[in-house]
Amino acid sequence: MRVVRVGVIGCGYWGPNLVRNFARHPHCQVEAVCDMRYERAVRLGGQYRVPMITDRPDELLHGRELDLVVIATPSFTHHKLAKAALEAGKHVLVMKPLATRLSDAEELCELAGRLGLLLAVDHTFVFTGAVRRMKQLIDAGSIGDLYYFDSVRINLGLFQTDVNVVWDLAPHDVAIMDYLIGHEPITVSATGASHGGSPTENIAYVTVRYQGSLIGHVHVNWLAPAKVRRTILGGSKMMMIYDDMEPSEKLKVYDKGFSIATDLSVEKEYQQMISYRSGDMHAPQLDTREALAIEVDNVIDTIHGKAELVVNGRAGWRVVRILEAAQRSIEQGGGVVRVAGAPVVGVA
Amino acid sequence: MRVVRVGVIGCGYWGPNLVRNFARHPHCQVEAVCDMRYERAVRLGGQYRVPMITDRPDELLHGRELDLVVIATPSFTHHKLAKAALEAGKHVLVMKPLATRLSDAEELCELAGRLGLLLAVDHTFVFTGAVRRMKQLIDAGSIGDLYYFDSVRINLGLFQTDVNVVWDLAPHDVAIMDYLIGHEPITVSATGASHGGSPTENIAYVTVRYQGSLIGHVHVNWLAPAKVRRTILGGSKMMMIYDDMEPSEKLKVYDKGFSIATDLSVEKEYQQMISYRSGDMHAPQLDTREALAIEVDNVIDTIHGKAELVVNGRAGWRVVRILEAAQRSIEQGGGVVRVAGAPVVGVA
Amino acid sequence: MRVVRVGVIGCGYWGPNLVRNFARHPHCQVEAVCDMRYERAVRLGGQYRVPMITDRPDELLHGRELDLVVIATPSFTHHKLAKAALEAGKHVLVMKPLATRLSDAEELCELAGRLGLLLAVDHTFVFTGAVRRMKQLIDAGSIGDLYYFDSVRINLGLFQTDVNVVWDLAPHDVAIMDYLIGHEPITVSATGASHGGSPTENIAYVTVRYQGSLIGHVHVNWLAPAKVRRTILGGSKMMMIYDDMEPSEKLKVYDKGFSIATDLSVEKEYQQMISYRSGDMHAPQLDTREALAIEVDNVIDTIHGKAELVVNGRAGWRVVRILEAAQRSIEQGGGVVRVAGAPVVGVA
Amino acid sequence: MRVVRVGVIGCGYWGPNLVRNFARHPHCQVEAVCDMRYERAVRLGGQYRVPMITDRPDELLHGRELDLVVIATPSFTHHKLAKAALEAGKHVLVMKPLATRLSDAEELCELAGRLGLLLAVDHTFVFTGAVRRMKQLIDAGSIGDLYYFDSVRINLGLFQTDVNVVWDLAPHDVAIMDYLIGHEPITVSATGASHGGSPTENIAYVTVRYQGSLIGHVHVNWLAPAKVRRTILGGSKMMMIYDDMEPSEKLKVYDKGFSIATDLSVEKEYQQMISYRSGDMHAPQLDTREALAIEVDNVIDTIHGKAELVVNGRAGWRVVRILEAAQRSIEQGGGVVRVAGAPVVGVA
Repeated sequence: MRVVRVGVIGCGYWGPNLVRNFARHPHCQVEAVCDMRYERAVRLGGQYRVPMITDRPDELLHGRELDLVVIATPSFTHHKLAKAALEAGKHVLVMKPLATRLSDAEELCELAGRLGLLLAVDHTFVFTGAVRRMKQLIDAGSIGDLYYFDSVRINLGLFQTDVNVVWDLAPHDVAIMDYLIGHEPITVSATGASHGGSPTENIAYVTVRYQGSLIGHVHVNWLAPAKVRRTILGGSKMMMIYDDMEPSEKLKVYDKGFSIATDLSVEKEYQQMISYRSGDMHAPQLDTREALAIEVDNVIDTIHGKAELVVNGRAGWRVVRILEAAQRSIEQGGGVVRVAGAPVVGVA
Repeated sequence: MRVVRVGVIGCGYWGPNLVRNFARHPHCQVEAVCDMRYERAVRLGGQYRVPMITDRPDELLHGRELDLVVIATPSFTHHKLAKAALEAGKHVLVMKPLATRLSDAEELCELAGRLGLLLAVDHTFVFTGAVRRMKQLIDAGSIGDLYYFDSVRINLGLFQTDVNVVWDLAPHDVAIMDYLIGHEPITVSATGASHGGSPTENIAYVTVRYQGSLIGHVHVNWLAPAKVRRTILGGSKMMMIYDDMEPSEKLKVYDKGFSIATDLSVEKEYQQMISYRSGDMHAPQLDTREALAIEVDNVIDTIHGKAELVVNGRAGWRVVRILEAAQRSIEQGGGVVRVAGAPVVGVA
Repeated sequence: MRVVRVGVIGCGYWGPNLVRNFARHPHCQVEAVCDMRYERAVRLGGQYRVPMITDRPDELLHGRELDLVVIATPSFTHHKLAKAALEAGKHVLVMKPLATRLSDAEELCELAGRLGLLLAVDHTFVFTGAVRRMKQLIDAGSIGDLYYFDSVRINLGLFQTDVNVVWDLAPHDVAIMDYLIGHEPITVSATGASHGGSPTENIAYVTVRYQGSLIGHVHVNWLAPAKVRRTILGGSKMMMIYDDMEPSEKLKVYDKGFSIATDLSVEKEYQQMISYRSGDMHAPQLDTREALAIEVDNVIDTIHGKAELVVNGRAGWRVVRILEAAQRSIEQGGGVVRVAGAPVVGVA
Repeated sequence: MRVVRVGVIGCGYWGPNLVRNFARHPHCQVEAVCDMRYERAVRLGGQYRVPMITDRPDELLHGRELDLVVIATPSFTHHKLAKAALEAGKHVLVMKPLATRLSDAEELCELAGRLGLLLAVDHTFVFTGAVRRMKQLIDAGSIGDLYYFDSVRINLGLFQTDVNVVWDLAPHDVAIMDYLIGHEPITVSATGASHGGSPTENIAYVTVRYQGSLIGHVHVNWLAPAKVRRTILGGSKMMMIYDDMEPSEKLKVYDKGFSIATDLSVEKEYQQMISYRSGDMHAPQLDTREALAIEVDNVIDTIHGKAELVVNGRAGWRVVRILEAAQRSIEQGGGVVRVAGAPVVGVA
């Protein structure tokens, strides 16, 4: 198997995890690392004795034989760097979000397609044991018709000034939602607020309507005192809760549902009518391998022609599409915004 | 102290709790119970050997000397029964919501005021140890400027056909929000969806904007496999989480906040910038008395002239005002709706 | 169905729950309540308008027609009062523990047997949905061979001076253990300590050995800052955790076990060898009716000849037998004590 | 600052963590790795391009200039390898337990002392933010007199055949206990059981008595379906719970205690007497750096003469002393065993 030579641009928060996982892969070699802040590149590259350490992306792109370029820089630079890498003939893996404008995401997808290069997007959560299991259950029909997707991703963080909380945190939830639901979103409405003098929104609520009565909702917040990472997916047959803060039993599947009391006869007790019920719960054993390792495997296997890319540029584009609509709704004060290219259908 | 003679209309889910608490009060006597379904009235009345048991509200109102009439019937009957009780010269305690139309709530407030009768609304959660402590902390300035109020009240329940989930569950959250925040809401936007053939919404998201950047959000859901009852209130100095499902430590106060990194210099580590931080947490000891018992005390004490009513008709009106706006927004597909009588100011 | 006339002695902590549940039963009437502290009897009796209210047990026993006497007084009085009630020809329900000496428990069992009267013991937890489900799973063979029973019952409480923590809290765990395990205990060893000037032990660890390698362990503690109520039962096929502080999902059944690596060959990874594994988990839906209501049903049904008593005097005796052995071990400084009447077999 | 040249023997479960942390230290170089299973050494050494990779400890000890030898092999080899390293003139860091016999631990302490070499033991938990904070609170007198130490460390694991669960898991708890309590243990009693054909105990309860009424208890179990890591420390002024499975708020300090009701007068309500109370709780912000990184810093700083070793050979010896006594008690069927060298005093 030919070794895949990897260059990583961006040695900040996520970069070390990327380098570690590519270094660990038996058919990979990390050949170059790059960071505008040279000392960060030196520190990370030194730990793994990476041959090329540089602070200039073009040096990385042109100064060394590379097969794959990994881009882990701030969001607003993704488009420009990914474009340059593709134009230099490299396969590309970009961190989320693929781009900060839908038109940029579109351009990258087209460029990769035209050049026959791989364009992968790091939607890490899609590779977790929990999300993959949820997908299996949905695909197997166990969940039934999907009713709602509700995701909360909140914690206390330092604010970022270049992007708001929607572009920072919501890509995770929207990527999970897109992967699991597999339907076309119709409209988005979102509300955000900024506090404490922050120039950007630090709390936001994003609602996505799909055809029929399927509804998605994402709550992202940089100002929450406790860390919550919880996704609920309700269906006609089963419901699932994925709580990433649980040390084990991250996924709980509730195998009995509810029943609609459409014929509440006088004889029926009001007490019964509103009684809280819950069926049996099942917490399946999950694959606990690091999600990023599985993602790296998938990218390398795709390059080797042995697998299909799980998160390609088009998936990245679909996430950007919703983020951009949410941004527009926030700017409009919460109004309902049609998703780009949404089919002309009604929501219930 | 003169004994307060109480009649209870509605012996369903909440009725037994009301009768039990009034029966336990040293200065109360439950003189009459009423339920359209006579056998329910008999069962509850029999347990406490209540002198009058009837299935006709007018018999209760006129057939026996009563000082206070408690109305624990389905929401759509509140206005009619409360009006009749007030017109019969009785003090009234109505379950939430006070009415299902703002104009009805208004009429009840005016009627009670004109007749000099007490109109109390059962916003039970306002009397919990947790909410009262939150109120104290806010009033003492410990929380600082309020940033957001986020409440989740979800569980698996049998659907009700007469009201949707907003009118059933959200009154609790909106009552807590109104009590704690004490500001005038400006706009409401809400999204709801109904599933499984239900004629009414069984999941809804309600956003309330206040002057400035203060934002309120309520998630209510009858289709959630797990029961969540969690309210987060963020402020400029402290943040609070009230989790009613915690067996103890229901209220957690986080006494260190966040800091806005407005001057992210190049030297600053990206890693630090997004690092999750959390300060010390404090879980104060709370009064664990049953909230309804405290509420009953307050109502009786108010009748005796020894206290001021904590939740009067006007508080009930304020809650209905938001529910009605949410309902209108849902019917409009999620648009922004101005709250009745809201001051003409902007939201940030 | 003949109405069972009930008298309750002891109107303290547990008394109101007993009166409430007997009052609610369609074939019961609470005819008399008694408490040495007369005002307590008056308060409780008044709430339910009980015909006889007295501070003298003999008045209750002889002054009114009763079928069943319920004894909810301090432990050290159980034997004397239960004996008197039996001798007065009444069926008896005694709170746990049945008696504070094994010889007293024995005497009560014999007396009830001789007189043909019912002697029931209030081991409430045996009637919880969780424990009954555990019992079903054990009886069905789903758990396999029982390996260990581990129970923790700790909280912060005011100390009692008449009994130590073993006699106060451990009866619950020992009753559950006895009910679930159904084997004869062989030895008991226990350690206790008292702190803060308390005359009695406020923390204790009790180990019970059964035939083979089955082991039981109970940790009871009045000095723990958090309330823990957790029982683990391990078997060769499945394991169960009953956590009574969980708002829902109180019982979790783990349906995959462990495997013994008896042939750790050199090829086997050390990493695998110690890796933490856990199989699928299943949280069955439980009956959520109040345990005491089910117990009351069982007692009344037994009197009516329609059921068999679930917790009879002999079960109470078996619990006292272990408590007494634990007490003796504590007094001996932790040595191993043979349980009264234990079969002469070895423990592994 | 002179670079410390490190050799690591044992590349199994814990080895990679050690290599990673020493590699990351600015004044360290990992010069050699060794594992009997050569391919494991190659894999780990290759990732970090370690100059010497060998399967023979003596080659590591004598074939390359080293300052510090880290021993991460199975427990039964610790003594032999540590002795050889000390005799080769190297500083030594040994994983827990220091040795599997007290006499071996003693020999290592004496040897290191005679040769003037550093003998460190990897009691990792002592370096966690939680345990260090507990120590600070105890030393500051905030906890008051220590009453009890209760630690539970249970999970589902593959059995090990060379050691039982006491020698595998309890060193963590005993090391924490020894570090926090700082008193001399007097007696140990322990019970263990083995199941499923395992040759060694897979569940054990260890009780340690100190002078006065201070009591320690450790529950270790390889057969528990859920992972529990919880230590409670009760004192006369405050109590602490360290729950390592909590994602945040790992340490909770309860700042109000209990009160002894020594004069339970008749007037006092039984209800009050047993009411569960809990005071305010405080969860201090903790240092979240990896414990092993802090330990490595301490070892390197000690070699550089800039710090004092936190866990020296004598601390390792103290832990072995209790483990050995527990082992003896288990072998005696649970009897009380005097700790080696314990002062002749009474326990309460």
